[in-house]
Amino acid sequence: MSKIAVLGTGDVGDTIGSKLIELGHTVIMGSRTASNEKTLLFIAKHGGKATAGTYAYAAAKGEIIFNCTRGLFSVEALKMAGEENLKDKIIVDVSNPIDLSKGYPPILSICNTSSVGEEIQNAFPSAKVVKALNTVWCGLMVNPGLVNNGDHTTFICGNDINAKQRVIEILESFGWDDENILDLGNITASRGTEMYLALWLRVMGKMNKSTFNIKIVR
Amino acid sequence: MSKIAVLGTGDVGDTIGSKLIELGHTVIMGSRTASNEKTLLFIAKHGGKATAGTYAYAAAKGEIIFNCTRGLFSVEALKMAGEENLKDKIIVDVSNPIDLSKGYPPILSICNTSSVGEEIQNAFPSAKVVKALNTVWCGLMVNPGLVNNGDHTTFICGNDINAKQRVIEILESFGWDDENILDLGNITASRGTEMYLALWLRVMGKMNKSTFNIKIVR
Repeated sequence: MSKIAVLGTGDVGDTIGSKLIELGHTVIMGSRTASNEKTLLFIAKHGGKATAGTYAYAAAKGEIIFNCTRGLFSVEALKMAGEENLKDKIIVDVSNPIDLSKGYPPILSICNTSSVGEEIQNAFPSAKVVKALNTVWCGLMVNPGLVNNGDHTTFICGNDINAKQRVIEILESFGWDDENILDLGNITASRGTEMYLALWLRVMGKMNKSTFNIKIVR
Repeated sequence: MSKIAVLGTGDVGDTIGSKLIELGHTVIMGSRTASNEKTLLFIAKHGGKATAGTYAYAAAKGEIIFNCTRGLFSVEALKMAGEENLKDKIIVDVSNPIDLSKGYPPILSICNTSSVGEEIQNAFPSAKVVKALNTVWCGLMVNPGLVNNGDHTTFICGNDINAKQRVIEILESFGWDDENILDLGNITASRGTEMYLALWLRVMGKMNKSTFNIKIVR
């Protein structure tokens, strides 16, 4: 079991943090302020099995970092976490650069020639950024069995083979079959999984639900 | 059976034009010049069942227009075809805005806030643009049975309901099951299906083949 920092206390952080606690990990929630309302609710819900603090506090305590902040602000949040607290650590980046400021459907704040995954890796060169899980609704991230008996595809990418292997183990503990986890290569492949969001949003709008995913078939 | 103009004489135009001829349609191939080498080969291959000419010649003869030109140049090609020759017609846009000028993997020449499908619709307001088939390799466009017994998803979008229905009929004649054709709404959804290419290219690179697709599962 690991000490895992979960940065971001929205639905994604809550969902992933709760699953990690269920699996027996020690979870340290990180937010902009030391203790926002959602963090307090999270700690209350888990009966003291979680702790919380600022991004920097959580990152310092965590051996592995889950970035569950909004992609639009992820680099900023990780800078608040502090380079020294991220040094040589695995950052599992599940974010998407969704920008709703121009209305719906949202645009991506970054795409095509870069991605949040790449921006994080560039900002923290010693960290081992692994992009993962960002192509599905957070409920599915930790419970793939909700659709098609769990038989659908999830993607990871990153520059460090060992870090990816560790993240694959975590995904398997979430319920993902090894054969459904597709390693797309280095961190630049984040562009692909983040830009897919433009299609995901349209499919979600058409189906009027988020409990779906894609399966690569050949 | 219809008179169908196929603009673009690359692999995509060749594949779609050949399938349309096999199905009994009259095909008029359109290219930048009246008769390039590929066009002559196409006509020879089909024993005179196809005719060919400039983009304008083909568009004038066609009741339905397939845009199989490269997305980077599609609006330009359609302007050469001439607004009067596209007036009120269905344009089936299967293109992608892949720009290889900056190296591999390619970037998209347009995305996020617009798309080739939208640019074509904006340039030719009376035309009924239907984006279709651009999320798969051209061989799969006309032969979905090549993977997973044909059980995978294809997307269409466009502003005109009747035009989309006509295109659905054509897709069904290509072998697509009605239940696997997902209508994503108006032409702005082209952004979704075109941006998916960034993911498609990575999956293709990983699998080292183009004979795959995604199936939406729920």
